[in-house]
Amino acid sequence: MSGGEGEFDRIARYFAPLAAGFPGALGLTDDAALLDPGPGRQLVVSTDAQIEGVHFLPAADPALVAAKILRSSVSDLAAMGADPLAYTLATFWTAAIESAWLARFSQGLAVEQAALGIALAGGDTVKTPGPLSFSVTVFGTVPTGAALRRNGAQVGDLVAVTGTIGDALLGLRLLREPDLAADWGVSDTEAAFLAARYWRPSPRLAPMAALRGVASAALDISDGLIADLGHITATSGVGIALDAAAIPLSPAAQKAVRRLALADLLTGGDDYEIALTISPKKAAILDEAARASGVPITIVGRCVAGSGVRVYDGAGQVLPLGQTGFRHF
Amino acid sequence: MSGGEGEFDRIARYFAPLAAGFPGALGLTDDAALLDPGPGRQLVVSTDAQIEGVHFLPAADPALVAAKILRSSVSDLAAMGADPLAYTLATFWTAAIESAWLARFSQGLAVEQAALGIALAGGDTVKTPGPLSFSVTVFGTVPTGAALRRNGAQVGDLVAVTGTIGDALLGLRLLREPDLAADWGVSDTEAAFLAARYWRPSPRLAPMAALRGVASAALDISDGLIADLGHITATSGVGIALDAAAIPLSPAAQKAVRRLALADLLTGGDDYEIALTISPKKAAILDEAARASGVPITIVGRCVAGSGVRVYDGAGQVLPLGQTGFRHF
Repeated sequence: MSGGEGEFDRIARYFAPLAAGFPGALGLTDDAALLDPGPGRQLVVSTDAQIEGVHFLPAADPALVAAKILRSSVSDLAAMGADPLAYTLATFWTAAIESAWLARFSQGLAVEQAALGIALAGGDTVKTPGPLSFSVTVFGTVPTGAALRRNGAQVGDLVAVTGTIGDALLGLRLLREPDLAADWGVSDTEAAFLAARYWRPSPRLAPMAALRGVASAALDISDGLIADLGHITATSGVGIALDAAAIPLSPAAQKAVRRLALADLLTGGDDYEIALTISPKKAAILDEAARASGVPITIVGRCVAGSGVRVYDGAGQVLPLGQTGFRHF
Repeated sequence: MSGGEGEFDRIARYFAPLAAGFPGALGLTDDAALLDPGPGRQLVVSTDAQIEGVHFLPAADPALVAAKILRSSVSDLAAMGADPLAYTLATFWTAAIESAWLARFSQGLAVEQAALGIALAGGDTVKTPGPLSFSVTVFGTVPTGAALRRNGAQVGDLVAVTGTIGDALLGLRLLREPDLAADWGVSDTEAAFLAARYWRPSPRLAPMAALRGVASAALDISDGLIADLGHITATSGVGIALDAAAIPLSPAAQKAVRRLALADLLTGGDDYEIALTISPKKAAILDEAARASGVPITIVGRCVAGSGVRVYDGAGQVLPLGQTGFRHF
């Protein structure tokens, strides 16, 4: 870590404790950290950039900001089937960031680190005249050659998703317009569930580690199910046909969707669930991965010859989708 | 890499070619990249954050911006004695960034990558309402356990620096106030040299790789020689006594320093030279590393009992230093 005057104190007070459990962080006192994937393993690395007011709601509880930026980044490790190891954090602080904010933010990171099995390895803090921004780089490990990719889907493969789709989009809408809850008929508890799905996504590490070498393609859903499945179709050279009725929705989303188009939930972002493809012959392993991890995995469609993603309703008609992969604020 | 609409095209056009030589980048089409330090080696990782108008001059040639952000980041690898491997890049684009800018920026990165022996492995691009900002995460490798640290300096060790000190500070001042050249008596060629030392620092990879397991402590000089040596004294539990007359200055800096205080050059930043300590018994290896790499390494002082960094003039008087580690704009 480096930084101007005063930044050293902040690093020592708020960030060094987050690195205490990771010897390779060298106590955040050196120019760089040391990472060791271990024998027969490769390092998986992903870098994300996130901005207040663009990628997360402004003026939020710093602990929620910590949860959102770390969990959404770790989701990229889940997509590759990686076991989490460490992360580095570049922070662009505004003048409004003071000690109380930092204390709450670093407490939030500590909670999320413990839940995710990951530790701070290094980073940098700078002051910006722009909005509060972060870049998180996450590190995980996989047995060499076993990382899940986007390009292995075959015609005939099943398409499946972890968890439920659309909750985060609904949570974001409720956070911005709480009165929608009554309109949708969702309870306070359900509204809180949806908001939590927005702020604290659940990287699906356990089931995806079990599907290394089993799933033919996988990615995490950050820009919306349809847009992200589009990456699998483009890199794998297949089409995907989804069954609208099979899309897994939470009880809260099932209520809300009566007032919305299903297409909204399929093209909204921030799910941080995993979409994957798998040979029908391996469907039993899918069931076992779901059972062992406690994370539901639902078959929602199939890879077909051609290109692009289409969603079919019960009558076999193609659902109109409008814009896909649009970021909603 | 991920990003909104249009970002995918930019990534394919301007960034994917930068990753073409690095198989672990997976063509920038997946959620993460794969890194392999190789048998018996560890990965060294460092994350930096840089902002236009704070860490580099605004409205500059994009190729110079590319040089500055990549070279200053790779300098952290040199400090640890690491061999460069790859980097990820988080970019916060402003609305003013268009195709011509990106083309020039990515060409600049291509040139610097080739010079540094490093390749793009992944990243993220987002639009910001704030200033143009970057976070670069660099990866290198060292034999396991051989990374140079800051905490190994011993009383009696020699203190040495690579290259020359203060050029970047002078270059920055000239870039902001070209008339100073006449005042300092530096030629146009010398002024161009100083500006290049600001924009295109030289990570000292070769001599530092040769000093793995030899130097007792090392770091790169980003906040100014005095401030950065202060990190070695703090983590190693020694003091450092510098000989003012021994500080290596370029011919251009030798002219300019007649009009400035030497202390300015010792407390300015952006040198991206390496400061190191080494047992006097190993001084011959230091000479050999300098000779083999063609990078001058100059002994400038010695580690002493106590704490802090002091600079002594020829009469044995302590030089007043004023503020250390201040960023000059």
